Amino acid sequence: MAHRSYTILGTGALGGYYGARLQQAGHTVRFLLRGDYEHVRAHGLRIASMHGDFELPEVEAFGDPADLPPSDVAVVALKTTQSEALADMLPAAIKPGGAVLVLQNGLCPERHVAGLVGAERVVGGLCFLCSNRVGPGHFRQVRFDHIRVGEYASPGMTERIAEIAADFCGASVQTEPVEDLALARWQKLVWNVPYNGLSAVLGVDTERLMAHTDTAALVETLMREVAAAARACGGHTIDSPFIEKMLSNTAKMGPYRPSMQVDRQMGRAMEVEAIHGDPVRAAIAAGCGVPVMQAVYRQLRFLEDQRVAAKGTG
Amino acid sequence: MAHRSYTILGTGALGGYYGARLQQAGHTVRFLLRGDYEHVRAHGLRIASMHGDFELPEVEAFGDPADLPPSDVAVVALKTTQSEALADMLPAAIKPGGAVLVLQNGLCPERHVAGLVGAERVVGGLCFLCSNRVGPGHFRQVRFDHIRVGEYASPGMTERIAEIAADFCGASVQTEPVEDLALARWQKLVWNVPYNGLSAVLGVDTERLMAHTDTAALVETLMREVAAAARACGGHTIDSPFIEKMLSNTAKMGPYRPSMQVDRQMGRAMEVEAIHGDPVRAAIAAGCGVPVMQAVYRQLRFLEDQRVAAKGTG
Repeated sequence: MAHRSYTILGTGALGGYYGARLQQAGHTVRFLLRGDYEHVRAHGLRIASMHGDFELPEVEAFGDPADLPPSDVAVVALKTTQSEALADMLPAAIKPGGAVLVLQNGLCPERHVAGLVGAERVVGGLCFLCSNRVGPGHFRQVRFDHIRVGEYASPGMTERIAEIAADFCGASVQTEPVEDLALARWQKLVWNVPYNGLSAVLGVDTERLMAHTDTAALVETLMREVAAAARACGGHTIDSPFIEKMLSNTAKMGPYRPSMQVDRQMGRAMEVEAIHGDPVRAAIAAGCGVPVMQAVYRQLRFLEDQRVAAKGTG
Repeated sequence: MAHRSYTILGTGALGGYYGARLQQAGHTVRFLLRGDYEHVRAHGLRIASMHGDFELPEVEAFGDPADLPPSDVAVVALKTTQSEALADMLPAAIKPGGAVLVLQNGLCPERHVAGLVGAERVVGGLCFLCSNRVGPGHFRQVRFDHIRVGEYASPGMTERIAEIAADFCGASVQTEPVEDLALARWQKLVWNVPYNGLSAVLGVDTERLMAHTDTAALVETLMREVAAAARACGGHTIDSPFIEKMLSNTAKMGPYRPSMQVDRQMGRAMEVEAIHGDPVRAAIAAGCGVPVMQAVYRQLRFLEDQRVAAKGTG
């Protein structure tokens, strides 16, 4: 197997962990950093992980996207709230014929990237990862690690997504190629819409939400609205057993703080549009009423705008 | 006009203000108190008000409902979350043929009282009052003051509600008798459901809610669901001009903190069932879906139960 080169656009808890795993597995990896740039250039990366801790004393660290050499695969690991910065990174970060792997949340984060590099170069990835930044260049993967990757421009299995999945699997990250990226994104929204939204609005973790009759019922209502929206937007089928399994799995998961709750608590930007705004607009445009999703979206939009007004953008 | 005697069941910011006004106007008024009993028995009541400040150095204060002599009118001025205590107060607090005036929030706080004294003795009242407790036996009426009173058992104008309204008007409290108490209660819920609910969940005043596009839209959505519920539950008509006027009046009102927001902030019991739970159940029982009301109710129920679990009942 060829050893593809990777560039991590956004070396945070997610990009830092995956990039370090790829380098550990022998790939050439370039890391684009902001605040941690000087530290990582001098000291490399440290990873704590349920699969074993390790250090990379030397990494290719870049502070300016203009300095990035082109790689085979550019990995978009910025939060969707920072996607505007991609215009300075792409398409220069990829070789001719290279691909962009979009590891972002939401209904369709690939669309913005496709506008920069062309849809045919875009691969989407859904991450199921719990990872935190411990300090400069120091990340801790706490649980979960897997990724689902799929083609953006046209559904189906391709050599490209099989190769990317194989690279990640070889780097200790369970990764599976999927035929239908859009379905996979709707399936992930079945989890993300209720748990991120309600945990952020109510300020509690998933365990608290599932332990109370009313919030558990509200979670299920939101899941069923997401499923209805998925059907209205392209005929994706998300059936009741899928929803019931997601409910029972989450109830068994123990206390888990979704990213949006953490972001709100830390005063950081919440991914309101990617996770809530876009699906609500897509559903309404498809003639599918999603009253509760829309209500939660409006609450989040309000809270996020309050945060920005109070603290400046973050 | 006969000078009716009144007993105030619950001498808080609302009952204390109205009771003091009635005594100031010459009525015999008995005040039932809990925490402030010793202080009020010794020092009476002090009122600050937009209509003029005054003191009542001597009042008939009672600490035990068993000591109350029967009055012509018992005024229920407890929060709905404390209504269980009424069983020790009624019907003993009223004379044979006397009435109970229920000045509580919600869809039908009269029902519980009717179970204690008989429906034919019950008069309902809707208060539009902003009043705070400043200290023991010391209340400040900040703005608004009026009351709408109506018969509970059967709609229509009666001598009784005209007389009660006249007593309050004579005591500087603008009070109007209404023919249809149930309609009046639904009309008040058009305001209470969105503003109390969203201000409590989001932790902001009415001005903030109205200044943001998304929360203002959510307020209107809730108002229209309340109107639909009112129509389904007995055919009450609440039309668009009524809703639009309520929206624009509230937007002009300046920063106002609904009671439920204040209660949440102070760690006190919120009137979740009276204002949200009962209307939601009534609507659903009448076959009227109210998805957003129900979602907000579930959020509030969760927050209230969290409060109780964290601090004990309050």
